[in-house]
Amino acid sequence: MTVPYPELDTPSLIVDLDAAEANIAEMAGVSARHGVRLRPHIKTHKMPAIARLQLDAGAAGITCAKLGEAEAMADAGCADILIAYPLWGRPKLERLAALRERARVRVSLDSVEVAERLGASAADPVQVLVEVDTGLHRLGRPPGAPTAELVAEVRKVPRVDVVGLLTHAGHSYRTTSPDELRAVAEREVTDLIETARLCGGELEISVGSTPTARYGAAVPGVTELRPGTYVFNDATMIRLGVATEATAAARILTTVVARPAPDRFVVDAGSKSLTSDGAGTPGWIMVAGRPELTMSFLSEEHGVGRCAPRTGPEIGERLEIIPSHACPVSNLFDTAYGVRGGRLDQELAVTARGRVR
Amino acid sequence: MTVPYPELDTPSLIVDLDAAEANIAEMAGVSARHGVRLRPHIKTHKMPAIARLQLDAGAAGITCAKLGEAEAMADAGCADILIAYPLWGRPKLERLAALRERARVRVSLDSVEVAERLGASAADPVQVLVEVDTGLHRLGRPPGAPTAELVAEVRKVPRVDVVGLLTHAGHSYRTTSPDELRAVAEREVTDLIETARLCGGELEISVGSTPTARYGAAVPGVTELRPGTYVFNDATMIRLGVATEATAAARILTTVVARPAPDRFVVDAGSKSLTSDGAGTPGWIMVAGRPELTMSFLSEEHGVGRCAPRTGPEIGERLEIIPSHACPVSNLFDTAYGVRGGRLDQELAVTARGRVR
Repeated sequence: MTVPYPELDTPSLIVDLDAAEANIAEMAGVSARHGVRLRPHIKTHKMPAIARLQLDAGAAGITCAKLGEAEAMADAGCADILIAYPLWGRPKLERLAALRERARVRVSLDSVEVAERLGASAADPVQVLVEVDTGLHRLGRPPGAPTAELVAEVRKVPRVDVVGLLTHAGHSYRTTSPDELRAVAEREVTDLIETARLCGGELEISVGSTPTARYGAAVPGVTELRPGTYVFNDATMIRLGVATEATAAARILTTVVARPAPDRFVVDAGSKSLTSDGAGTPGWIMVAGRPELTMSFLSEEHGVGRCAPRTGPEIGERLEIIPSHACPVSNLFDTAYGVRGGRLDQELAVTARGRVR
Repeated sequence: MTVPYPELDTPSLIVDLDAAEANIAEMAGVSARHGVRLRPHIKTHKMPAIARLQLDAGAAGITCAKLGEAEAMADAGCADILIAYPLWGRPKLERLAALRERARVRVSLDSVEVAERLGASAADPVQVLVEVDTGLHRLGRPPGAPTAELVAEVRKVPRVDVVGLLTHAGHSYRTTSPDELRAVAEREVTDLIETARLCGGELEISVGSTPTARYGAAVPGVTELRPGTYVFNDATMIRLGVATEATAAARILTTVVARPAPDRFVVDAGSKSLTSDGAGTPGWIMVAGRPELTMSFLSEEHGVGRCAPRTGPEIGERLEIIPSHACPVSNLFDTAYGVRGGRLDQELAVTARGRVR
């Protein structure tokens, strides 16, 4: 039995760099073909080295969820950053001002209250995108008149420039067919375009989760795509039909530490390596290359799997597990290991891990 | 509106030290009353300062899941450590040997394979506890003859001393009444005692999750309790009836960043602060002191809550959220903030965060 990546102890986060680079090139190609700017969300990887690959492949800039992520990426040389999050409170607004000294920064928001504090804290105008609720029911008012009214109010706020509309169609994750997914993706764009028409002026139309990006890019009028997960993919993207096991670039390398019953094995990775995202759904995590093995449940440090009686992996065998959701998994590791062709290639610092503020 | 903990930006992990100390004293009292040794599991906090409080209150030692946690705690002066996990592979066995130079270390296992490698790597005998499956169906063979056979085999392995039986009744988390919980807890102990009788010799009887510990301690014959969560508690412990909001010592301090709809608010903490553990169950996370507010769902950096229309918190208001499961939450933060009486008291380093190997 050859041991994959013998230099690495387990559990470890490994990134297949060939697969990640192909994913980056593919999405860059989609954007280029449709003349849409690509601004990948770095929450998926939190790694400056991966952001650099995305920018080198033609991304116009990056998207961050939190100010701390943006600071980490600016430290690494990212010069054009969208913080797709409403920033509140003096400490963050002071940090934003400092960040704007060294990078082009846009932010998103969905209220006049946030816009007013932002404008009051800024020495010169801040470019903002107004978030629209296209169905996730998280941030934003509904498309059409409710958002147009908000845009009109925000436009009155001194030192705040409304440059676009933004949405995140997270509800696309709940679709069950390619047709339904396409419909959500197209609706996401057309909702924003129709709202922009009500608002008047030239507005950025910024959309695109990984499931919806390829469909949305094809709708005339969209200007910016912000997918994140596409760089690594995961079991959820495979389920949605927008990824395959071969394009699932991030895996948790594990060791089988127990065979307590003929049909049960236990690996040394649990929810503190793989998170509890998606837990309980059949196939929520997958053992790469081993479709005969199914994962049953995770404790914090144990992954419990099932196999046919008296088959399955031996104690000491290594398995690669494809996470349910790649983004929170990166956030659990200080270092990932970039691999190529089955060999360790380089360490990848997860610099923005834990940058939750 | 006074701002709680104005020094702290959000989201932050705060620990009510008065509540945590009371929790520590209460469980120490349970153990002392029944003459049972307490060996708290530090996976819940991963903080040397909290381990010190537990030891000062009379704990006989600590329990860790991973070797890296044990190393971090030994660095902080913990001298008696149980690694309740089967260790496999040369790097870990070399690290274990080094750790044994500076602390009393026991390990658990559930196979002859793991015992043989352990014994072969050790210069002098390693004390082990054999794990028993009392119903979680994770590690271990069933109680009775299957485990007695395993113990007999492990006893033949050179430089491995079987000093006890160990179980984790994680299935107690699925109980729905105090009577059912008590039955699981008592069964956990009696299963081990009966198995120990089959094995012969004097064996440690090591049990106890937070839900079962108080019941299990009262069963004659138990020698060691290993609860973890009790120090902080969480919404799951409240649901199980073994904690209250007042004893829930770990909270995520958040800020309301949006009120996009009359019945909806959004806070700046999502699954990257609170994890996805328990997600989807009504009441899986709670807003402390605000029973009229319910949390609806978490994205990575957003927590979406519901309130009665045109009521609820304003943008900028701070809320404290009680996590569903405290243990993986600590693992997301480098620093927690110890508070007393509504004021910041001290920073707490989460030294063993991410020590997954």
